[in-house]
Parts: sequence; structure tokens; C-alpha cells
Amino acid sequence: MYSSELKVELMLRASKIQEKMKANGVDACLIAGNANLYYISDRVFRGYVYIEQQGEPIYFVIRPVGLKGTNVVYIRKPEQIAEELANRNIATPQKIGLELDWLTFNDAKRLSSVFPNSEVVNSTMVLKGARMVKTDLEVAKMREDGVHQTKAYSKVPELYKEGMTDLEFQIELERILRLEGSIGFARVSGHLMEINLGSVLNGENADSPTPFDFAVGGTGVNKSLPVGANGEVMRKGTTVMVDMNGNFNGHQTDITRVWRFGKVDEMAEKAHEVSRQILREMEKMGVPGCKVADMYNRAIEIVEQHGLADYFMGHTQKAAFIGHGVGIELNEMPVLTPRSKDVLEKNMTIAIEPKFVVPGVGAVGVENTYLVTNNGLENLTPFPEEMAEL
Amino acid sequence: MYSSELKVELMLRASKIQEKMKANGVDACLIAGNANLYYISDRVFRGYVYIEQQGEPIYFVIRPVGLKGTNVVYIRKPEQIAEELANRNIATPQKIGLELDWLTFNDAKRLSSVFPNSEVVNSTMVLKGARMVKTDLEVAKMREDGVHQTKAYSKVPELYKEGMTDLEFQIELERILRLEGSIGFARVSGHLMEINLGSVLNGENADSPTPFDFAVGGTGVNKSLPVGANGEVMRKGTTVMVDMNGNFNGHQTDITRVWRFGKVDEMAEKAHEVSRQILREMEKMGVPGCKVADMYNRAIEIVEQHGLADYFMGHTQKAAFIGHGVGIELNEMPVLTPRSKDVLEKNMTIAIEPKFVVPGVGAVGVENTYLVTNNGLENLTPFPEEMAEL
Repeated sequence: MYSSELKVELMLRASKIQEKMKANGVDACLIAGNANLYYISDRVFRGYVYIEQQGEPIYFVIRPVGLKGTNVVYIRKPEQIAEELANRNIATPQKIGLELDWLTFNDAKRLSSVFPNSEVVNSTMVLKGARMVKTDLEVAKMREDGVHQTKAYSKVPELYKEGMTDLEFQIELERILRLEGSIGFARVSGHLMEINLGSVLNGENADSPTPFDFAVGGTGVNKSLPVGANGEVMRKGTTVMVDMNGNFNGHQTDITRVWRFGKVDEMAEKAHEVSRQILREMEKMGVPGCKVADMYNRAIEIVEQHGLADYFMGHTQKAAFIGHGVGIELNEMPVLTPRSKDVLEKNMTIAIEPKFVVPGVGAVGVENTYLVTNNGLENLTPFPEEMAEL
Repeated sequence: MYSSELKVELMLRASKIQEKMKANGVDACLIAGNANLYYISDRVFRGYVYIEQQGEPIYFVIRPVGLKGTNVVYIRKPEQIAEELANRNIATPQKIGLELDWLTFNDAKRLSSVFPNSEVVNSTMVLKGARMVKTDLEVAKMREDGVHQTKAYSKVPELYKEGMTDLEFQIELERILRLEGSIGFARVSGHLMEINLGSVLNGENADSPTPFDFAVGGTGVNKSLPVGANGEVMRKGTTVMVDMNGNFNGHQTDITRVWRFGKVDEMAEKAHEVSRQILREMEKMGVPGCKVADMYNRAIEIVEQHGLADYFMGHTQKAAFIGHGVGIELNEMPVLTPRSKDVLEKNMTIAIEPKFVVPGVGAVGVENTYLVTNNGLENLTPFPEEMAEL
């Protein structure tokens, strides 16, 4: 089922999970979430992966039919897992990890009943923790994603036509992203976050608060999806912020760039440059061992030095972070907040997005996806950062 | 906050929920799921709606800032709900309904602790049950959705070019749907279902099994989203099934049409006509009081009469239903399976999709979204059903 290279990779990923399981005293995990299934098996399927602190995982598959390979076991319902484990003489785990921040209440109860003699513990952080530090192959995939996404962004100037609405502009950009290979789906953690392929925010609309935990808002075109472009014509003196997600290979990067229409207010130009200055500072700070809270605080310090605090990370409504891990999901660990206890490790991948919303103009700022290296942050999404005219 | 027409509509929706609450002995519900929030408040927000068997709902809002209206209460965390209810002299409910098939285990536990003296019961079916029978305004929205979606489908012949891959074809269709007003997001029930804007299935790929509970499969272009178009060139002698979801106003319709390239095998032509014959039969059968299981069984009967059972609802992997409710979510109640106990009621909206997968040719069949009326099913998605040549 797997190539030998992929086999080695998946063993590596399993061992990263097993390491976190040992550190947290979790004897076995039953994994059900799509993002985690994809991480450990390189595919999304309906079913479960059972993994102990040692040894190879067992793949319990409900759908699709036809998967083959070592340790692939077809079941019709989760209750059959207990029987199969008994057949294999696998001891009942003392502590069984379930994704209690992902599974529905009823699914978690049903899976718990498969292990009536085990203590159920939350495996969410074990799995998020393992996925937080990327393997070299994951980094290579994200690097490739960045190449495709910046290539799509490079076509922005040719797809813009005067008189376009923000939505028409976004639609053409979605098409370009799809033609470049985007799978057309942004995998986001948490069912409170809904979005299409990303956000295009023009002018005042960037200051419209959204229910979702994205850095910037927008009303959207319908109250059932209140985020992003609102369908108004883009006018001189405003900016358009492009924060579209590509997802070209299952591992995503996150990139934001801003264009302007004609001349914009000086404060907007200044704020955009301060965003870039913050990124340069973060790139130096971001070595293994650096506390992400320190990065947040340093960013705030720079913003305050320039008297721009009112506009940073939103104006009418503010986001409480300046960046976040990214990979299989758009919003992974760590989250760059002032209260985080997380510390950078080599091979983490984080998107940093110091953004400003300037009333009357729109959103400005830059977002890059970075790899943590011993020499600081390496930009996986190199692309001109200047606010160019459209 | 609401127009007077919308106020009446939302009171009607609340009363539909309250009726189901009474029938099921649920004293109050705390609603958190996006689809249900949208149903009861005409907007998606981060927060909760508290509703008793009588009276107006209370809207507890966390994000976005700035919502105004009667009974809108801002909170930072769910624990504040208890305090606010006490301030309003609202009695502790004996049975509090939570969406235990939607909330994560940990969120359900946290919300349960807001009501330490109440019995927590599952409100999922109360809410799905209320939403199953549409209001006239919902029907009007779905009718409007059908107009937009069929208008987009009418452009299929002009966007196809010989030598296109299924994916290129889908990308152009996505653009047409978006330009026609699609919000670019298919709201699906259940976090085991992931999809972009819909499915385009050509030739043999239609027979590839998917992990998801859709009627037909496809490998997709990446194992992280294993469904739909696979990027191969569409060839003579095959079909392409278009099952793209529009979602133009928050209430969706579901439509499938099939085109052919050149001549296709006679069995595929026949199966397509049998699908239409089944729909005509369902349209007559589908009056209030009709058991959906009877509809399923009648469809199977027709299929078997024509000796096509091997190809019905998939070939290598089969779907276990022939249709489903549709509305705010693509997959609502009732589901047309042989074991369902559901019975049609006036103003239900259901998508019926008798589909066949013919090896070597591809998928054939038609899907319409119907309104249940006293005279049978009314098609909300009228559009030529013949398998035309592209």
C-alpha cells in the first residue's frame, strides 16, 4: 500500500506521536479525526487508527472498500475494535486517548464504551503536539505548497480589472489557485471556523467584525457565512488584502499580501512597513527556545512605538494572536499569544501575520509562513512584500 | 436588528422548535451549532441561543462585536449564561437539551456544567426534526437557489472544451457558480464529510470508492480529500456527472445532471432513463403520509425489474440511501433508506438521486430537489434531464 519512502515517513510520524504518549502517560490512542488520520496514514478514510506506545498502528477501516496493507482491518462499527484487539492479544490500555476536543459527545461516549476497563483521557494535545514539529518531508511539502501559492499570487496584477467588486476579484483568484493545483478545500481546526478558499478584504469591509477567529473580518455576501468579501466595487484610495488559502498537497501554507488602488493614506503606508519591520524582527528572534509570548510582546512593543496600537490586529474587533502554527490544518499549534507557554522548536512551521486595519482605507500588512531553524525563521513563502498598485 | 417580516419568520421557526421540545419533554435548549444558530437567528455567530418551551429565545453572543436587538446578551464565556438566566428569574430546566451529536465531548461537558442541577438530553433530533419541515420562506429561498443553480448548469455546454480534464471542467463550473452568486461553501452535516463545492465525476473515476457518505465517489486529486474529480482527460464513450452544490443564499438545493461524450454504451443510456422513471414514480408517491422506506423499496423494485441492481447507487461501493432532506445543510432529515421510520410531511424538501455507475462508462442518473405537497413532489430544480452530448 505504501512506498518504502512513505513507510519510513509514517513510522517517523507514529514515533513522534508515541513519544508524546509516553510523556503524557497515555497507553494507547484511538484516532478518528480526519487531520490526524491523514497525518498517520497519508490518507483520509472513515475509521480509526489504534496506536500503542510501541509498535505499528492498526488501521480499522469502515469506508472506502478496497484498502490493502499490513494491519488494515475492515470493521462495520467501532464495537468490533475490542474483539479484534483481543484476538491479537493486545492488552487493555490503562489510559486510552480519544480526541475529546474533536469527537462529538456521542461519538466519544460510543468509543469509550469500546474500552470499558480503561480510563479515557484527552489525546487532542498529544496529537497536536506531535504534529506541531514537522518532519523533513512535511517541510518539503509545505515548501512546494508555498511555490504554488506564490505563483498564483503573482498573477494578481493581470487578473484585476478596474470596476471589479472584491468578490469578482476573489472568484478569478480562486480559479487561478485551482488551475495551479489547489484542491479547493482549506482544512481548518475546530467546527466554529467556516470559510471558503480564503479571504479577500477591500476597504472598509476589512473592519467588519466576524464571528470567526480569523485575524481580520469582513461581512461576506450572506449571513450564513459572515466572513470575507462583501461584493462592493473596489475604489481608489483603498487597499485589498489577499489572504487566500491554496492547499495544494494536503499540507498548507498561509500567505497574505496587500495591493492598493491609487494612492492611500500615509498611515496605511506606514502601518504596512511596520508590519514588515515586525516580520524582520520575528525572523531574527525565532530560534529554537524562543518563547512565542515574547514574540507577541515584542511585536506589540514595535506597534506601540509607532503609535499604531489602535489599528493592530483589527480595529473595531481585534484578534488576540499575531500568528499560528500551520500544516495539515490552517490553524495548528503554537498560537502566538501573550499567555502562551509554548516555546519554538526546530522544524515548527508558523504563519506570522501582523496586520492593521486603517479606517477608511482597509487592511494592510504581510503574512508569511516560516520554518523554525537554528538560524532563525526561514520564509517558506518568499514573494515581494511591498504594497504595489493595482 | 430584524425586519418585521423576518421577526415573524424567526418566531415561527422558534415555535417549530418549541413544539418538538414539548413533544420530547425537553424544557430548554442551548443551541450552539452553526446550522441551528442560522436557522433560529438568521445569522451565524459565535455564541449560544437559549430557548424554553415558551417565549422568545435569548441570544448569548461572544463574537462578533456590535450585534444589537432584543434579548441579545454579550458574554465572554458560557459560564456567564447561568448568572444571566438567574438575573432574569428563569427557572432551572429539569431537562436541558444540548446538541450531543454536534458538540465536541469537551464542549458538551463544559456546557453541561452551566446547568449542574439539570438532566442533559440530546437536542440533535429536536432541532433536526424542527428543521425537517420547511417554512414557506425557506421554501421560497430554496426555489430561488434552484433558479440560480440551474442557470449555472445551463452554461455547461459552452464551458466544455475538447481535451479538458474533469478537474479543469469543474474549475470553470465553480467559477460560473460563483459568478451566479454561490457563496462558495457547501454546508454539510457531520465532520466526517469533507468536500469542496461539489463533485464532477467522469468515466471510471465515478466507480472509485470514497470514505465519505456521498452517493458516488471519485478519488479526488489528493489523498487528503479523496472524493471527486481526479484530473484525467475526459474521453469519448464516457459520461460526466455534475453534482455541484451552489448555496446561493444559505438554503441549498441539490442537483445532478449528466452529459456524455459521443455515444455511450446502451446500458448506460438505459440506466439513465430508469433513473428518470424512478423520479417520475417518486413524484407521484411522494405525498404527505408516504413512508420514505416505501419510496426506497419501490425504487429498488424498478431497478431490479430492469436488471440493473449491480450498478444502482454505486458499483464497487454502494450508498445505502436514494435521497435525503436538504436545506441549510446538504444532508438533512429524512434519509431515504429501507430502515427509516420517517414519513413525508407537507413542506419537507428532499433531494432524490437514483444513480447508477456503469463500468467503463461512468455515472448516470438525475437528482432533483423536491418540495412535498398534497399533490405529490414539486420539483424545485426544473432543468432538462436528458443525457445530452457535450
